[in-house]
Amino acid sequence: MSFDATPPAAGPAWHAEARVDKERRVEVSLGERSYDILIGEGLIDRAGEEIAARLSGARAVVVTDETVGGLYLTRLEIALAGAGIEAASLTLPAGETTKSFVRLEETVDAILGARLERGDAVIALGGGVIGDLAGFASAIVKRGTHFVQIPTSLLAQVDSSVGGKTGINTPRGKNLVGAFHQPVLVLSDIGVLDTLSPREFAAGYAETVKYGLIDRPDFFEFLEKSRGAIFAGGSERSEAIAVACQAKADVVASDERESGARALLNLGHTFGHALEKAVGYDPQRLVHGEGVAIGMALAHRFSVKLGLCSGQDAGRVAAHLRAAGLPTEISAIPGPAINRDTLMEAIAQDKKVSRGRLTFILTRGIGRAFVAPDVAGDEVATFLDEELAR
Amino acid sequence: MSFDATPPAAGPAWHAEARVDKERRVEVSLGERSYDILIGEGLIDRAGEEIAARLSGARAVVVTDETVGGLYLTRLEIALAGAGIEAASLTLPAGETTKSFVRLEETVDAILGARLERGDAVIALGGGVIGDLAGFASAIVKRGTHFVQIPTSLLAQVDSSVGGKTGINTPRGKNLVGAFHQPVLVLSDIGVLDTLSPREFAAGYAETVKYGLIDRPDFFEFLEKSRGAIFAGGSERSEAIAVACQAKADVVASDERESGARALLNLGHTFGHALEKAVGYDPQRLVHGEGVAIGMALAHRFSVKLGLCSGQDAGRVAAHLRAAGLPTEISAIPGPAINRDTLMEAIAQDKKVSRGRLTFILTRGIGRAFVAPDVAGDEVATFLDEELAR
Repeated sequence: MSFDATPPAAGPAWHAEARVDKERRVEVSLGERSYDILIGEGLIDRAGEEIAARLSGARAVVVTDETVGGLYLTRLEIALAGAGIEAASLTLPAGETTKSFVRLEETVDAILGARLERGDAVIALGGGVIGDLAGFASAIVKRGTHFVQIPTSLLAQVDSSVGGKTGINTPRGKNLVGAFHQPVLVLSDIGVLDTLSPREFAAGYAETVKYGLIDRPDFFEFLEKSRGAIFAGGSERSEAIAVACQAKADVVASDERESGARALLNLGHTFGHALEKAVGYDPQRLVHGEGVAIGMALAHRFSVKLGLCSGQDAGRVAAHLRAAGLPTEISAIPGPAINRDTLMEAIAQDKKVSRGRLTFILTRGIGRAFVAPDVAGDEVATFLDEELAR
Repeated sequence: MSFDATPPAAGPAWHAEARVDKERRVEVSLGERSYDILIGEGLIDRAGEEIAARLSGARAVVVTDETVGGLYLTRLEIALAGAGIEAASLTLPAGETTKSFVRLEETVDAILGARLERGDAVIALGGGVIGDLAGFASAIVKRGTHFVQIPTSLLAQVDSSVGGKTGINTPRGKNLVGAFHQPVLVLSDIGVLDTLSPREFAAGYAETVKYGLIDRPDFFEFLEKSRGAIFAGGSERSEAIAVACQAKADVVASDERESGARALLNLGHTFGHALEKAVGYDPQRLVHGEGVAIGMALAHRFSVKLGLCSGQDAGRVAAHLRAAGLPTEISAIPGPAINRDTLMEAIAQDKKVSRGRLTFILTRGIGRAFVAPDVAGDEVATFLDEELAR
């Protein structure tokens, strides 16, 4: 079984939702569990009224980290109080190590200590780490409370806050434990992105580029033209976020629990995860979006090697990622050289493995990604040897 | 909103599934996630073929406890190997304290260590504790692997193995953390029930009686007539188990995530949970089924006090439970006297509380239970004062 990306209809279909005004709305269509993603300036200050409008009478527990909480928790608490929402908060250390069993237990205890009921809400205020952890805690407390995402990194706004995947890491790997748990609302306040470091912004940009590469060649062209404006903070920025959210929402709506088409969202991720694991998840060496950037470049070059994709397309992808300040080769990762066998081992343990065969997202060109469920391990190994020798 | 139990159709409808042969099958109808409950002698020895028939090529991790594992793990391993199912196992200490975060983490690690994939199976071999813990681990490893239940207590066979509720306890209360995760198969081997102590058997019997009290008055009459045979191990035993499973399956099918009708299954449980909490979950003083027995007797007497139920019906319920060796009064619990305020505090923290109002399952008579979502706290307190003075 393989899933080809549907070629886009003529004309820039991704323009449909774009509006002149600052605030954009993307709906994730999941029947009675459908929810809105709002994208705009100042949404943190409107969080209380937006939540109260959807969850009348609900109480809340805000989960955040020390960095984001220091910047925005007070503003959020004022907004919640202004809408009559009683809220407790939990502030955790910033960083990937917070996605652990021990922090999960701490978060669950804080939610239970606030006596949240199923009709109340856990609010994640932070990047992907906080969203994944708080969302998972929300999924399992009393077998599911309401959940609201306020993503504060570009990566979280275009990727992890959309689609309901939540989870934690274990010593055996990242995101190996978790739940599918959809939020009732996502508030993407683009005002907070200006406090991101250029490196963090670029990392989130890699996931944005991914949607163009999967099945939206027009969107990729838009990004090629508008990269400067997006990094500078123009209206192109919120347009790009809205298109990325819409793209992910479309895939999630068609395949909520990742049995088929949703796997396309893993473009660049099998290689990327293996690289992250190989550097011990050391953010000094590689952050997730950078791993995805290298992974996407590798997926295109591997597709060229397999005779699926033109070298020109693979070159164009790498050039765009590099222009955005992203790495595209394994050798770009600072520190000790990375071993081929370490990467192969990590790939085999990746949770997308199906009955021992290797599943990769490959491509026939920009915007033409597809799921290849039975890639031979030794072809991957040979390819990695070539890449490591570059 | 309140949900009245539908009166049963004329004639003993619960007889429909009963057959002369030993093995019975109950289907839990949940669309594409429907599954079978098989009830009969020697099913442990047939587990391999039954699982292989449903999950071709799957591997497995068996989770059990020291008591049950000592009796049945080797037989199960032989059965799995005989059907070509590669299996690892994890044996945990017996007892309620195993339903903890630390044992969950240990179980998750064992499953990941065996490199189980989403298409593989976690098998719970044990009573409710093992089923709840292993089921929860199965729900969250890679956001959900297949799950098979082999319940080895009467309580687990008629109650906890059916319906997909999984979870663990925290210091703040029982089952406050968990997931809805349906098994793909339940194998209820009635041969294992002969090794249960009379007290354990009676505790499971309390949950069996509950289905009669909710909406099957004919089944309650059958139990009144057949109690001796059921305790002795006759064909009435597997008939009673099948009817109880069918009753729970019907409710689960109509309300998988406990938004309405499923709440009826909590008959006796709000009081029962409060009593268990009040004795610190000390199984020397009170096991779950005994708490439910007292809770059902209390629910009937509370309903009498509220003018809903006849004193005759309440008396008949208490008499049947006592005849089965079950307690029906708070004073029957050995040890220090139980405090009214402790019980009220526990009731308020119970997860069935909706927005601060107390939700109870009350009844208009045997087989006529209903959800009362707005019971006043002081009426409950006054009733408990009377009960504690009995």
